[in-house]
Amino acid sequence: MEALWVQAPHRRWNPLRREWVLVSPHRTQRPWQGQMETPAVPAPITYDPTCYLCPGNMRANGERTPQYESTYVFQNDFAALKQDVPQAQLDLGYGLLRAETERGICRVLCFDPRHDLTLATMEVGKIRSVVDMWTSQAEELGARPEIQYVQIFENRGAMMGASNPHPHGQVWATEHIPNEPLMELAAQQEYYAKSQEPLLTAYLRTELIEQERVVASNETWVAVVPFWAVWPFETLLLPRCPVSSFTGLNAEERDGLADILHTLTAGYNRVFDTPFPYSMGFHPAPSDGQPHPEWTLHAHFYPPLLRSATVRKFMVGFELLGSPQRDITPESAAATLRSVMQAE
Amino acid sequence: MEALWVQAPHRRWNPLRREWVLVSPHRTQRPWQGQMETPAVPAPITYDPTCYLCPGNMRANGERTPQYESTYVFQNDFAALKQDVPQAQLDLGYGLLRAETERGICRVLCFDPRHDLTLATMEVGKIRSVVDMWTSQAEELGARPEIQYVQIFENRGAMMGASNPHPHGQVWATEHIPNEPLMELAAQQEYYAKSQEPLLTAYLRTELIEQERVVASNETWVAVVPFWAVWPFETLLLPRCPVSSFTGLNAEERDGLADILHTLTAGYNRVFDTPFPYSMGFHPAPSDGQPHPEWTLHAHFYPPLLRSATVRKFMVGFELLGSPQRDITPESAAATLRSVMQAE
Ligand SMILES: O=P(O)(O)O[C@H]1O[C@H](CO)[C@@H](O)[C@H](O)[C@H]1O
Ligand SMILES: O=P(O)(O)O[C@H]1O[C@H](CO)[C@@H](O)[C@H](O)[C@H]1O
Repeated sequence: MEALWVQAPHRRWNPLRREWVLVSPHRTQRPWQGQMETPAVPAPITYDPTCYLCPGNMRANGERTPQYESTYVFQNDFAALKQDVPQAQLDLGYGLLRAETERGICRVLCFDPRHDLTLATMEVGKIRSVVDMWTSQAEELGARPEIQYVQIFENRGAMMGASNPHPHGQVWATEHIPNEPLMELAAQQEYYAKSQEPLLTAYLRTELIEQERVVASNETWVAVVPFWAVWPFETLLLPRCPVSSFTGLNAEERDGLADILHTLTAGYNRVFDTPFPYSMGFHPAPSDGQPHPEWTLHAHFYPPLLRSATVRKFMVGFELLGSPQRDITPESAAATLRSVMQAE
Repeated sequence: MEALWVQAPHRRWNPLRREWVLVSPHRTQRPWQGQMETPAVPAPITYDPTCYLCPGNMRANGERTPQYESTYVFQNDFAALKQDVPQAQLDLGYGLLRAETERGICRVLCFDPRHDLTLATMEVGKIRSVVDMWTSQAEELGARPEIQYVQIFENRGAMMGASNPHPHGQVWATEHIPNEPLMELAAQQEYYAKSQEPLLTAYLRTELIEQERVVASNETWVAVVPFWAVWPFETLLLPRCPVSSFTGLNAEERDGLADILHTLTAGYNRVFDTPFPYSMGFHPAPSDGQPHPEWTLHAHFYPPLLRSATVRKFMVGFELLGSPQRDITPESAAATLRSVMQAE
């Protein structure tokens, strides 16, 4: 890109959220005298007798985790959502104080019996089992009449609120479509109505021509630092074929997803030579019984580290009250990620 | 409120952002085995020779901070925004990769020469000087033709990305209205067109009748835990008289603002007997040359602590990919805050 966009403060449009992001590339020289994070370290043992996700151990509710050998799914013992909620609405006046009950299901998704592994260190074949688990969860939960959205995600690392290093993610399935997919739905529908093509299909085509923000790819999937990235090393995972949900993925696409997840997470670990913390999750089309030709299944990776294993980006004052702001350009983040992906 | 809303998962409507927030009140029993924060400690010295905000010390750019006695304002040495930016736009195709340059001004606002003070420990008369500084900054920056929004904020505590404990805030004035005030503008305009009354006037009236979420008040200002609070002890500061900007505040209202800021921040410190970290900031009407009868000046406080000085709320996986989620009800947070405010 032209020098101007590498040097001058500017804003970039996020067409998926229809919002702007502030980019301050000249600010990378800023010294950091603030909070230093504790660098993440890999779990050193394959089995932890105090871990409730390790096979054979006791959970908070007194149940025992079985001797599972691949993946394992169970109901979250401290679920943020429940199924047996009476339906009720509240309006304390003027439409300004409104509440309604929300039904849902929260499950914990164990990726592997081994306590010390992560997506970055698991074999691709094992990640393929994780993809299959996500697919069957999305299928089963999405088919329920009371569920309109199936949000699969992973919080990795203590810095991202994960309370256990055992490789696992979560699924929260909800009665209503949450805010983020709702914004993406409106944006993708608007674009599709205008162009008769999914927004993310057109976007991926441009990124494949540009190449500047592509960090990894295989026959079926591409990982890019999106043009509108907020987090320093944020990435977006896109399928090459337009597919709107997990159930639409064929065997080759599932293999490809496992492969690119391995490349991406292993690459992240090499950026600062530390287990890279992140929150990641998939955005499939809503399971609201409607067709979704506008929607492309995709995954977002939101990693907080900015300059080293101990210096993160804080999303605070201006970010919370104004707009998200970033200090390095998406193009320079992509160049860094590309170099570590190729170094493998 | 009825028992249902104290026990059952539900969602609440945020009329200022026109979005839902998930509330999971039954989840407070959840044990916490994740990251423990380093508790904040007050700065122990009134003058720190290495602090660039203390009077007489050298800044990064070689300038010397004067021997100021009340407040002091200077241009941020590592500003995220600059004034001398050529105007340019970029569109890499399909309207999906768009950027434009952004002009602006970033300043650091020192609240007091003493290194060890905070809004919570400063005398009300000194906070009144801070209110006057905010007012003159809002006035001066808002009058510039290239500035459409003046975002005043404070990041307090290392946990919220503050790199220096010296009492200070910032102002980022921007060419375009940032995302958050833009959302609030649309919501307030819609409500005003429908009701011929500002949204926050109607909201405050309801809260003053309900009282359940009011945590502090004086003749001119009221602090509530908003019905739609996201952060555990989030509060919203509202003026009793409809006023849309700092310059609209009379002397009594400025005194009242100083007073309630003292009550609120000192109260926060008593919740977990620790200097309470937060990001806070004001949302005045845009300075876009338009009249804003729909707008009410207000301040948001976003503090991250959830259960103790060391256990915070993480806004991660589901929050980043789905919707914000909270574990204690706004009403129980308000009851806690009220009890510590009255304990003074
Ligand atoms: O400018 P500071 O205080 O060094 O930086 C802090 O506040 C800024 C504005 O909210 C954020 O962009 C930074 O991430 C944060 O560390
Ligand atoms: O359920 P967990 O892993 O204990 O909790 C973590 O993920 C949740 C979903 O993103 C968040 O609401 C919590 O704040 C976070 O600590």
